[in-house]
This record gives sequence, structure tokens and C-alpha cells, in this order.
Amino acid sequence: MKQNDAPRLIALDWGTSSCRVYLLGDGGRIIETRSEPWGILQVAERARTHSTSLEAQFQQTLQKLCGTWMEAYAGLPVVACGMVGSQQGWIQADYRPTPAHLAVPTHALATVTMANGQSIHIIPGVIEDSALPDVMRGEETQILGALELQRASANEGISTVQWMVLPGTHSKWVKVMGSTIQEFSTSMTGETYNLLMQHSILAKLAETPPQTSWNAFDRGLVTAFSSEGRKGIMATAFSARTLVLTGRLESTEVSDYLSGLMIGDEILSVSQSWEEEPPQRITICGNENLSPRYRRGLQRLGIEEIVELRDTAPAGIWKIAESAGLLATKNTTEAEEHLRLPQSSERKVTS
Amino acid sequence: MKQNDAPRLIALDWGTSSCRVYLLGDGGRIIETRSEPWGILQVAERARTHSTSLEAQFQQTLQKLCGTWMEAYAGLPVVACGMVGSQQGWIQADYRPTPAHLAVPTHALATVTMANGQSIHIIPGVIEDSALPDVMRGEETQILGALELQRASANEGISTVQWMVLPGTHSKWVKVMGSTIQEFSTSMTGETYNLLMQHSILAKLAETPPQTSWNAFDRGLVTAFSSEGRKGIMATAFSARTLVLTGRLESTEVSDYLSGLMIGDEILSVSQSWEEEPPQRITICGNENLSPRYRRGLQRLGIEEIVELRDTAPAGIWKIAESAGLLATKNTTEAEEHLRLPQSSERKVTS
Repeated sequence: MKQNDAPRLIALDWGTSSCRVYLLGDGGRIIETRSEPWGILQVAERARTHSTSLEAQFQQTLQKLCGTWMEAYAGLPVVACGMVGSQQGWIQADYRPTPAHLAVPTHALATVTMANGQSIHIIPGVIEDSALPDVMRGEETQILGALELQRASANEGISTVQWMVLPGTHSKWVKVMGSTIQEFSTSMTGETYNLLMQHSILAKLAETPPQTSWNAFDRGLVTAFSSEGRKGIMATAFSARTLVLTGRLESTEVSDYLSGLMIGDEILSVSQSWEEEPPQRITICGNENLSPRYRRGLQRLGIEEIVELRDTAPAGIWKIAESAGLLATKNTTEAEEHLRLPQSSERKVTS
Repeated sequence: MKQNDAPRLIALDWGTSSCRVYLLGDGGRIIETRSEPWGILQVAERARTHSTSLEAQFQQTLQKLCGTWMEAYAGLPVVACGMVGSQQGWIQADYRPTPAHLAVPTHALATVTMANGQSIHIIPGVIEDSALPDVMRGEETQILGALELQRASANEGISTVQWMVLPGTHSKWVKVMGSTIQEFSTSMTGETYNLLMQHSILAKLAETPPQTSWNAFDRGLVTAFSSEGRKGIMATAFSARTLVLTGRLESTEVSDYLSGLMIGDEILSVSQSWEEEPPQRITICGNENLSPRYRRGLQRLGIEEIVELRDTAPAGIWKIAESAGLLATKNTTEAEEHLRLPQSSERKVTS
């Protein structure tokens, strides 16, 4: 193992329904990673069915996720972001109010110590405490990571104001100025889509498609952006049933058609709430399933430059661990040299 | 029993999740009624768990619902409307295309005959076969019933064009000209509301309220109609969580707040799709839980005259049975005298 292969940090992106762990080397380089469907809901469920305490169940789950790393590299700091820091999580971390300067640690990490003495540090979320308040946990770290990756790869300067969208169970639309979250809003599109596809009348006639039908997805998008779409998503969603009843949509197309309807409606609704003109450039931080769907929707809205970033949490966790003084001091310049954009994680699309 | 107390018809409003049966006398007067949570989904579920045929299960359920009436008054016609006539029902009835003149029997009733020789007649639904097609089953009969009740109680003439809303699992917004359904659209608001309240992240913090909180409901309505509401229901719904997190909404207010948000969003969305000015008058055909909610939303939209009608299906079924020649001939004038608006079923609200 070369010197700069030495692990420096264990990072966790621990959300509602899954957990991804990273073993990070110098500069936040990913040495190893692993993902399990062991989100905080599953941990709570296991605690219930096994009659153990939530605390004990979180400790056991962490051991299963990265116990071998914690043993092999004793003393390595462990830093987590996400819903693990919520009321339903392991220990409650603060919310930082907007405008939230992500690169400056204004609020302490929450720390929980395991029976074996290992400390877990949890990154605070962000709250926009307006008339309709909004909250995020985990996305602030993905955004910081995205900014770090942008900074590391930028040939030219990064625009000071930019919009980011983080698709997911609860997608986030975030306005960032420099390294500061100015404002954001959440859409429950992903969760509602899943509920409709699992339990609603649409679920009864939908069949799993052999692969994504971009044709059906685009048809949903077009409808959402059409005059019919003005009736709202609760109205257009019913057409996923009636088009099948009238033989104009295949059962295997229902899921992608509804996905197009709902993502189209989300994008259109959010854009209508923008006080300024739509931005020229939007960054999507999402997975390989959702990001291309949001890209197609944003293209239809007329966004000129759409950037897709994947897996940005570890770069954000690295940066926060560094700011919090959790990493043994190193030559910063050397460390920054290693902060490179992974080959596959950025794709520029200019329509 | 006086002569005009003699039962003339057994009528069923048999939907997805419940069935209401009526024993009707002269002129469609309700002699007796009964409601059970034995919708077509429950019938199918029982057929599965008891390993009987769907056909046998429908026969058994009908026996339990009104077997005593069928024995006591042998030979009485049995007429049903609703999802019992759908693909997932007992026997598939036609769809009549819009414009659908409800008082004229353009399409035959579907008829199924039981082992004991009893025939069940099922009323066709209506389809609007446009680019985004729409369908109804049961609501067309409620609308016809509402028109009959209006006609029977009208001192002045009824406006030739009117809007009706039928709130429910899938609410229907219907434009009626005379006795003809011109156009309509469906919103999946009720079903989605139930899914969010049962399964979503909002369900985790919601507590059952001791009674309806009109304060919370109106707060949801106001938000839906505000500039924040432009972000769409998928965005504003998340505030049902964040307002609780920030101590500005009680857990027991979540359900009514979300109800206000969703009904407000539905009303606003539908009204935005109207090509003409909003109508001065709207009739709500719904139950005692939903109708007052839609009335409050319509008042906020500025509708001047809002009429609530309840339980209009039997008057519609009576009319259809009569048109189809299923009722023994009587003195029509005398029969019409009995077609009176029940005291409690119409309430006029003028704001």
C-alpha cells in the first residue's frame, strides 16, 4: 500500500431507506464503498422485531456496514450525514438556518460514542425557517461535495449563483450562491410516485417493464407540459389508467408514463415559483435512474446547460471532516491535488 | 302497508370499497337503505381467500346485502350502478361516450342472472374519449339523480349549463348541459390523500384528531391558494411535516391541514383549466365528510352559489329503471308527485 493509499476517514451517507459507506483516502479519494438497504427505517424495524434498543441496533448495523474497516484502521474518524441525524435517527443533529454557508462549520457535529469507544460524528441539516419551513438532512453534504467537485474541475470560474436539483424520495431544489444555500424547497414526488405504483388503482393494471420506456416517459412529460397538464398531477395521473383501458398505452408503459407526468409536473411547478427567469444552467445530483429523467424534463423547460453529478456525498463529508479538524493535518496542497472529479461522475449535456 | 308503500325496485350503488342498497317505493321514494364496506375490491379479496369464484362471491354478497328483500318481494327488479360494472366487477357494462344524454337509454343495461333466476341489471358508465380519455361508473347515475331532484324541487328553471363536483376516492368535475354530460375530468386526490396519510412520512407524525379541525383545514386551503401554492401539491404537502417539526402545527392537525392543501390544489387546478369564467353556481354531490370541505374551497374560489346534494344515486337508478321499462307501468303523474327532495339532502349556501 502506497502512503497516499492509507485510509483517512470512514464516511456514511445514511438515509431513510439505505446507507452507503465509504473508506476515504487522502483528499477524499474513494478507496472502497458499499451500499446496503439498511436505512433508519429498517434499523427501527429491526429494533422492534428483535426487541433491542434503537441505540443497540444502530451500533450493530454500523458494525455490519464497516466493522472490518473500524478494526483494521483503528482510530479512523467516522462521519455521517443524512436522516441518521434526525428525530427518528441515532442522535439528533442541529439544523443550520439559511443562508447556510456550507464550507464554514457554524454548528457543531452531533457526536455519539459506541460501547467500544468509537465516536460517530453526524453533520447538521439545514432549515429554511420561512412561512412554509423546509428542511434537509444529507443533501447539504451532497451539495457541498458537488461544489468541491466543481471547484476541483473548473477551468473557468463557477457562476456565483446556481440552481441544483437532488432527485429522490423527497427531491430538493436548491439555490446556491458561492458555497451558501440561499433557499430551497422539497417535493414529495418520489415518495408519492412509489405509493401510487404500489397501492393505487394504477398499480392494478401496471406491469413491470423489461426496460425503461423513454417513449412512455416522454409522453408523460409532454402531457405535463401541455394545456391538459394545467389540470394538475392529481388529474393527469388518472390518464395512466384510462389510456390503458382504451388500448392506447401498454400495461408495461404505465410506470414510465406516470414517472414522466410527475417529474414534468414537478419541474413545471417549481419553475413557476421562480421569481427570476429560469437559470441557464442547472446541476443534477442524483442516481443513474432519476438523473436522466430530470435532465429530459429540464431540457423540455429550455434549460441550456444541464450537468449531472453522481455520488457527491463523500467529497462533502471529507470537506466537513477537514473543517471540523477531524483529519490528521496533512499538506493541504497535496491533499487537494487528489480531489479529482471521478471520470464517470460528471457528464455535461448541452442541448 | 298502504298501496304506495309497496316496494317497486331494489337499487344498488356498488362501488370500489362500499355498497349501498335501497328498497325503493313509488316514485323512487326510499323505504329502507343499508350500507356495507363490501365494495368490489372486498368481494374479489373474499373470493381469493375463500377460494370461490368471483361470480359465486358476488352472488353471496348480494344475498347478504338484500336477500331478505328479494325473498319478501319476489320478482322486484334489481338495478345497480358503479364499479360493479367494470372489468374488475361482476359483469362488464358499456361506456356511453360524451356527450351522454343521461335520460335517454342509448346503451343497454348489462344483465347477469343468478342461480335462482334473479336478474341484476347494471347501468353503463360514461367515457370522454379525448386525447386524455376519462371514465366514470356510478357518478353518471348520481348526476342523473341530482338532475331529477333539482327538477322536482325547482321553482324556477334550472340553468341549462351547470358544473357538478362529485368528491370521493376519484373526484369527478362534470359539465352538464340540460340532462347531457358534456365533459368531465377525474382527480385522484382522495386516493392519494389516503395513501399519504397511511403510508408516507407524514403518517409517522400525524395523530387522529378528536374532531375535524376547520382551522387546520382552512390553513391548508389558504396555503394552496397562496403564492406558495404555485409550487404545486407535491411541494406544499411537505409542509405538513415541517410545520410540525417547527412546532407550528399540532400532530392532530396534520390530516385536516393536508386535506385543505389537497382539496384547495384540486379546485385551483381544475378552475385553471376552465376555458370560460368560473361558473356562478356549482352543485356538490358528496357525503357529509367531503362536501363541506369542497364547499369551503369553492367559496374561497369565489363561487357565488354552492348547492350540496347527498345520496342522489337512488333517484338516478329509479329514473333509469323507468326508462328501461323495468318498472310496472303506473300513473306517471302520481309517481312524480312522490319524487321529492328529502328534507336534509339539499342545503343552499350563498356566500
